[in-house]
Amino acid sequence: MQILDRLAKTLGPTHVLTGADIASYRRDWTGAYEAEPLAVLRPGGRDEVAAILRLASEARVAVVPAGGRTGLTGATLADGALMLSLERMNCIRTIRPEARIAIVEAGVVLSSLHDAAAERGLYFPLWFGARGSAMIGGVLSTNAGGSNVLRYGSTRDLCLGLEVVLADGRLMNLMSELRKDNSGYDLKNLFIGAEGTLGVITAAVMRLVPLPGAHATAMLAARSLDAALAVLNRLQEATGGLVEAFEFMPRTYLEHLRARRPDLGLPFEDVHDVTILVELGATAPRDLMPGPDGAVPLTALLEETLGATMEEGLILDATLARSEAQRRAIWARREAAAEITLGHGHTVESDIALPLDRVGAFLGRALAAVARLDRGAETNTVGHLGDGNLHFTIFPSRTDSTLDEALTEAVEDIVADLGGSFSAEHGIGLAKLSSMRRRKDPVALDMMRAVKAAFDPLNILNPGKTVPDATFRR
Amino acid sequence: MQILDRLAKTLGPTHVLTGADIASYRRDWTGAYEAEPLAVLRPGGRDEVAAILRLASEARVAVVPAGGRTGLTGATLADGALMLSLERMNCIRTIRPEARIAIVEAGVVLSSLHDAAAERGLYFPLWFGARGSAMIGGVLSTNAGGSNVLRYGSTRDLCLGLEVVLADGRLMNLMSELRKDNSGYDLKNLFIGAEGTLGVITAAVMRLVPLPGAHATAMLAARSLDAALAVLNRLQEATGGLVEAFEFMPRTYLEHLRARRPDLGLPFEDVHDVTILVELGATAPRDLMPGPDGAVPLTALLEETLGATMEEGLILDATLARSEAQRRAIWARREAAAEITLGHGHTVESDIALPLDRVGAFLGRALAAVARLDRGAETNTVGHLGDGNLHFTIFPSRTDSTLDEALTEAVEDIVADLGGSFSAEHGIGLAKLSSMRRRKDPVALDMMRAVKAAFDPLNILNPGKTVPDATFRR
Repeated sequence: MQILDRLAKTLGPTHVLTGADIASYRRDWTGAYEAEPLAVLRPGGRDEVAAILRLASEARVAVVPAGGRTGLTGATLADGALMLSLERMNCIRTIRPEARIAIVEAGVVLSSLHDAAAERGLYFPLWFGARGSAMIGGVLSTNAGGSNVLRYGSTRDLCLGLEVVLADGRLMNLMSELRKDNSGYDLKNLFIGAEGTLGVITAAVMRLVPLPGAHATAMLAARSLDAALAVLNRLQEATGGLVEAFEFMPRTYLEHLRARRPDLGLPFEDVHDVTILVELGATAPRDLMPGPDGAVPLTALLEETLGATMEEGLILDATLARSEAQRRAIWARREAAAEITLGHGHTVESDIALPLDRVGAFLGRALAAVARLDRGAETNTVGHLGDGNLHFTIFPSRTDSTLDEALTEAVEDIVADLGGSFSAEHGIGLAKLSSMRRRKDPVALDMMRAVKAAFDPLNILNPGKTVPDATFRR
Repeated sequence: MQILDRLAKTLGPTHVLTGADIASYRRDWTGAYEAEPLAVLRPGGRDEVAAILRLASEARVAVVPAGGRTGLTGATLADGALMLSLERMNCIRTIRPEARIAIVEAGVVLSSLHDAAAERGLYFPLWFGARGSAMIGGVLSTNAGGSNVLRYGSTRDLCLGLEVVLADGRLMNLMSELRKDNSGYDLKNLFIGAEGTLGVITAAVMRLVPLPGAHATAMLAARSLDAALAVLNRLQEATGGLVEAFEFMPRTYLEHLRARRPDLGLPFEDVHDVTILVELGATAPRDLMPGPDGAVPLTALLEETLGATMEEGLILDATLARSEAQRRAIWARREAAAEITLGHGHTVESDIALPLDRVGAFLGRALAAVARLDRGAETNTVGHLGDGNLHFTIFPSRTDSTLDEALTEAVEDIVADLGGSFSAEHGIGLAKLSSMRRRKDPVALDMMRAVKAAFDPLNILNPGKTVPDATFRR
């Protein structure tokens, strides 16, 4: 194929992979998607990315940017397309500790940035399971979340600037290092979460924060979800916003946990409806707060605040981690979530967001709807309650794609009715495309198509993802 | 004029103002701009906004959305255009304290939202001088800053959702109340800071935060700007990010202050090169941190941290507010900034942002450049050092527009060389249009024009503002 020869000349033949060399690029790690890329390209820098896009524009061949390919929605599926892997562009250009920024190429692995920042006493506050494989370009393109969003925001909130190669090969320099920059339209945020459909992110300026030096961690049983939200608000006030995680495990989750991982134990003798993992993080040199009579430990602050909410009847029970080993044991119960879901075989999954004060209403209605449609179904829920983000999984009693669709539809109806979103932190890719079509405001969808047409008029950048029915138009 | 008759039928004749009734709308409050609007329209709701835009599209008449018109760049100048004033759309639809959100119409005055939130123990953390007139739609369209950005971010960071009427009159519903919502392109952020050139914001979902119950305020003299930045980072670590203001007053500022407002006094006997106003805000019920032996006052925490940095030689002197009266006296010295500038007559002003670690380099080079171009010029600088945002004002020794341009050019050259921006928190409007043309990445400018064409193909929304040379194209 002529374009592959030209690409081999540009990138060098060892960086245009085909045939047996791309076996691992044909499969998505979730196992849900398979594809046959035309080739896998591994450019060594932005100029080579630009050259690829010029050639692809000329030949009208689709290009799918890819990073660590740890996404959950099939967004990097490259069937019949050129997969543009950023893996070689893995240079941390600079870290400026006083300015609290890192300037990185798109192929930098998340955990490499964690390590480089930690060496300087700093933290890049984006943390999730795939951090050893996920790359900066991918987390930006997904606007990834994770367990620290409550305190530090999503990827979007951590990005100050971007360098992007457009569909026609032009380089756009939006590499601002600034906290304030009002100079025209905010193009940067268009690319964040766009899953590579508007341009290829080649580098970014990311914010760093002080590395937390101390944590205080507890499990608590709340009287209700509303009571849990009141406890969260109380903790935020008492600590000035030091809550790093506020993770929700309902009764069903703990029952699944007891069945599948009895070795991990349960937090309380009784299983409660609403169990919460809460963690505070502090950066002060001596634990949290130096006082006239010595340090005030972070754990004491957590204990006092939880004690007060218990006296008010908001929480029923609580247990604090008194050592790093106890802290790890608490987190192990939360991190078993994937195992619980995977062990069940066929599932109908959702990654939804709700207004914080409507999570309880959602769960009541969703469980009733599931029972109505499939009396034998089980469910499992776990979530980032502080963000209103739930991972609500249904285990249907039978494998039936019509039932699966009806369950998805019923859940999304309730989400929509409560002002929520069918997509919180995993993105759209292919998996949520039909939800986008049915659920998103039609005027917004139309304007997304107009934006796509403005940035990628030939529709060569990751076509068929993110925005349904975006087609060539000029 | 036929369109005015049709508008009078739609809005009612009392809400289509012309002639003597629009005297106050002809002048910009800065006095720098004057204009003759065709009419001033005061729609009572989003449907009337939509009707206005449908009629304007049909007649190809320009529409300039306007709020409190307290901007500094002429962005609401409506010469020969219909001024669409949001002033009647001033309803706070709801405040949900548990979810920490307010849903407001675009014409709500900032201080009204402050008051309504405070009644519920909450704070809308956007604070600047014009808060008694500025409206939500305007602060969103400007992406306004102010003195709390360091802790809470700019307007962009405080907005969860928007309702927008597009140029053709279609209503776009982006009224998300969610902390996480990855459902397609981030259209919301396009409208924030777009100065009404892409659509008319009619309502918004804004974040609220706990109302700070205690403040600790100090003036300090730092050894250098680098030392001041180190002190800021130290304070952020010691408090877990409670620094609400970190305002920079150089020697020249204090000398101007002594000359013009001797009644306000100076913070120290000596005038230092780098004087900083620092303020912490805490929301804990008992000052900041309850400890085993009683409360640890916020002021004690500030004092201890400043004491440590003084021992290290980072700061030379410090004085803490021991009462609310002392706190007010400290702030009065900062708030005299506008008075100092206005008193001088002719000025060349800039609103620039720099990477945090390059503010010192900028000032050294900028003062040298000014002296080179105009030996008799004076300057005044004041700024939000925590955001890297300086208001650098030159008082030229003579009135000479060629000299003014040369001074602006020299300052912006240095800003660009240091990776800064010529526009930090005031926006572009008309005032910075030529800087946009000369300074912004040309590919970014071109894509802004493409975005403008996608949203407003007839170029009827606030034409000639924000993006230079955006014209009709389809």
